[in-house]
Amino acid sequence: MGEVEQVPVWRLSEGDKKRVQDIVAREFPLTIILNNQELVTLLCTPSHLDYLAVGFLSSEGLLRSRDEIKKITVDEKTGVVRVDTSEEIKKADQLLFKRLITSGCGRGASFYSAADVMGQKKVESKTTLSSDEILELAREFQHRSQIFKTTGGVHSAALCDNEKILIFSEDIGRHNAIDKILGECLMQDVATNGRIILTSGRVSSEILIKAAKRNIAILVSKSAPTDMGVKLADELGITLIGFVRGKRMNVYANDWRVVDHG
Amino acid sequence: MGEVEQVPVWRLSEGDKKRVQDIVAREFPLTIILNNQELVTLLCTPSHLDYLAVGFLSSEGLLRSRDEIKKITVDEKTGVVRVDTSEEIKKADQLLFKRLITSGCGRGASFYSAADVMGQKKVESKTTLSSDEILELAREFQHRSQIFKTTGGVHSAALCDNEKILIFSEDIGRHNAIDKILGECLMQDVATNGRIILTSGRVSSEILIKAAKRNIAILVSKSAPTDMGVKLADELGITLIGFVRGKRMNVYANDWRVVDHG
Repeated sequence: MGEVEQVPVWRLSEGDKKRVQDIVAREFPLTIILNNQELVTLLCTPSHLDYLAVGFLSSEGLLRSRDEIKKITVDEKTGVVRVDTSEEIKKADQLLFKRLITSGCGRGASFYSAADVMGQKKVESKTTLSSDEILELAREFQHRSQIFKTTGGVHSAALCDNEKILIFSEDIGRHNAIDKILGECLMQDVATNGRIILTSGRVSSEILIKAAKRNIAILVSKSAPTDMGVKLADELGITLIGFVRGKRMNVYANDWRVVDHG
Repeated sequence: MGEVEQVPVWRLSEGDKKRVQDIVAREFPLTIILNNQELVTLLCTPSHLDYLAVGFLSSEGLLRSRDEIKKITVDEKTGVVRVDTSEEIKKADQLLFKRLITSGCGRGASFYSAADVMGQKKVESKTTLSSDEILELAREFQHRSQIFKTTGGVHSAALCDNEKILIFSEDIGRHNAIDKILGECLMQDVATNGRIILTSGRVSSEILIKAAKRNIAILVSKSAPTDMGVKLADELGITLIGFVRGKRMNVYANDWRVVDHG
């Protein structure tokens, strides 16, 4: 499936009107069915739908390891991913649905719940990195953001170690881009412990919760954090770096992981 | 309540490490209770919580006019808005909850449902405007975006006629910013028919559906639309203008409303 679409457009510029072809990001409704129960419909970029579904389920606490997955089927035509899991975690569905009904779901907020924060352990990783390494990763990240360059309409995310990008993804949703990465890690057995996530998007509370669940040590964004993002990063032991632009950056929490030997 | 928060931050720049104060956008969980039923928790900028709640309910089809509202109470301390409506529309709750459970809720997608699109009437407004008027509105819009300037972390939206901005709002969520405007229109009896919405954010399908519900004729964005945004604009009779930057813009759908007398 294409991730972008050509559309005819009128380009107006100082009295001039021209018919040109523009490229826009596709927006695809993906329904996730977990153990025969319809769970959610996400609007997403149609790529790596299996990773997105698995990443979403893992971020929501409904899936912990690859071993729990009995079967995944992706139907691109109908926009449905079916995930069947082992018996033990079926009960978890009930929990999610309860949350859906009692605390609802925030828009852009996933299934926001205070319980997500309260029950979350602190990230204990000893990982450190230098500001030069951060800038180098940010440069490579910028370089890889292909769909954004053509459409201006998507977010990117990446999993990195100190030297390089290990996994990269793009999606119209900033949450989806990160879930695609976390899903790929889970399905391909890529470790997330103590590693780094880069994101093009704003860093709000839910992003911190996703990261903490996978023991991510460092979050790096081109954009701004919210106050709650900063507070959670501090409490959850995650190093939060924002506004990486040119040769500058802001370190909002747990700056001890940024070590410059100069 | 403050819409921004000062946080101490380490600013790194070419080997230099300085402690400075940074300003970040606040992220506030707002729970909407409709007729004693907890409906949803939105993460938002804490301003105009009553407008946000009413706008959200109206966008979700749960509220149509000011007359239906019996009582609104905003509790800023607990982050709760209670809306009580007249008897007749209580049944609507059931519908929403059904949708929540069967088709789930998309993240950033509000309560996405195909039915929203199918049941939606075409916007028939004869409103036209010139590209100079669009550029002038975009300039004023840029000028008004105060929180963004200080934090880099929020979206703006505005309701306009051909000459000026009538209502302006800011929020960390692009949907919320538009819902705040629509809520204010509903509560203050400001007409939306045939008018213009400006947004700083990406134009995806849900934004078009919100606009069509209120008979908005023209949507103007600094950012990109998605393919579904373009398709819906075309089908719903809404003029969709994107990438308004400098003196240029792209008209993606229903360009007949952009009339230049030159």
